[in-house]
Amino acid sequence: MGIVRCHISVSLDGYAAGPRQSLENPLGEGGEGLHRWAFELDAWRREHGRDGGVTNASSAVVEEVTANVGAGVMGRSMFGGGPGPWRGDPPWRGWWGDDPPFHTPVFVLTHHERAPLEMEGGTTFHFVTDGVDVAVARARDAAGDRDVAVHGGADTVQQTIRAGLLDEIVVHVTPLTLGGGSRLFEDVGDATFEVVGAVDAPGVTHVRYRVVR
Amino acid sequence: MGIVRCHISVSLDGYAAGPRQSLENPLGEGGEGLHRWAFELDAWRREHGRDGGVTNASSAVVEEVTANVGAGVMGRSMFGGGPGPWRGDPPWRGWWGDDPPFHTPVFVLTHHERAPLEMEGGTTFHFVTDGVDVAVARARDAAGDRDVAVHGGADTVQQTIRAGLLDEIVVHVTPLTLGGGSRLFEDVGDATFEVVGAVDAPGVTHVRYRVVR
Repeated sequence: MGIVRCHISVSLDGYAAGPRQSLENPLGEGGEGLHRWAFELDAWRREHGRDGGVTNASSAVVEEVTANVGAGVMGRSMFGGGPGPWRGDPPWRGWWGDDPPFHTPVFVLTHHERAPLEMEGGTTFHFVTDGVDVAVARARDAAGDRDVAVHGGADTVQQTIRAGLLDEIVVHVTPLTLGGGSRLFEDVGDATFEVVGAVDAPGVTHVRYRVVR
Repeated sequence: MGIVRCHISVSLDGYAAGPRQSLENPLGEGGEGLHRWAFELDAWRREHGRDGGVTNASSAVVEEVTANVGAGVMGRSMFGGGPGPWRGDPPWRGWWGDDPPFHTPVFVLTHHERAPLEMEGGTTFHFVTDGVDVAVARARDAAGDRDVAVHGGADTVQQTIRAGLLDEIVVHVTPLTLGGGSRLFEDVGDATFEVVGAVDAPGVTHVRYRVVR
């Protein structure tokens, strides 16, 4: 059976997104800087349909993000926008464009029912109103022998840790400070972590932790 | 000329000391866990006058903490206790015992004047009431060609970063969460950081940053 795992970028001061997140600025002020280390990589560019880029110590980490993933879980904000009910006719289809980079079923935590949304390229968003346990259980079913990726944001990652559902987290520690926003390791209950290993890469440090219950 | 640098342990949630710090518990609740990775090392034990211990990837990092250091700077709380005036007759000589592990002049930031305090083994505490710029300038003078170590705590490290006085910081990222206490990378002004390199060691990840002004 696969594991439930998360890859997430975090600032030096511990934020997974910057302050003043909004529909126009979903990563918050300065938040796009969290992902700058990945943008130049060939592995990241290939996954997002772009050419070129470099290979460095981060490349294998980026390839691992999608390797062996059979399903995903994400929060409503990461799917697209705030906490309100689904509006528009047809309703908003999220941040991710017609062909989202997930290529698996993705279970979206929300308080508002909605029919599944089938996108191009193998991604189908399923909307789950019964909480994180149900979302992860459904993702596990869908993933079969493969892994479940917890895509984010910080609040969803925390929910999986608190509920004892997350097996592993790989933190991409970036050298910027954001001064506010969504803290990653907040309200994680009595979970403890073990260092599995670290990768020294240009402009970022990747650290893998096992979550111990 | 030497540089001004800092080696400091931080929790996964970004704290350099735990919550509810007191005279009885200067590292705060759970704060001693920040330093657990070092206690088993031969390099750490030798510096603290103890035998035994192991050698691993952290050993060189610990040896570097004291290598080529000509003087230090620390906050009043790290020297010993809270912010009040110096009490007792003779007044309190700090947490560090008769032979503190610094073996150099150490400039203590305080609001209360006090004569220098010469300890055994080469450590002399000088009490500086004119702020961090003066403390670092005096430490640089005392260090000559060697480095100035900013020993801590978090508030003192932040002051040196905000004032543009810190050249390098090595963060020992430990896998525990503290849930409260003194955040390390808070109120650091407009300083930016560059990753110099990381060391993957048992139970800890050491990341070296250059502070860019």
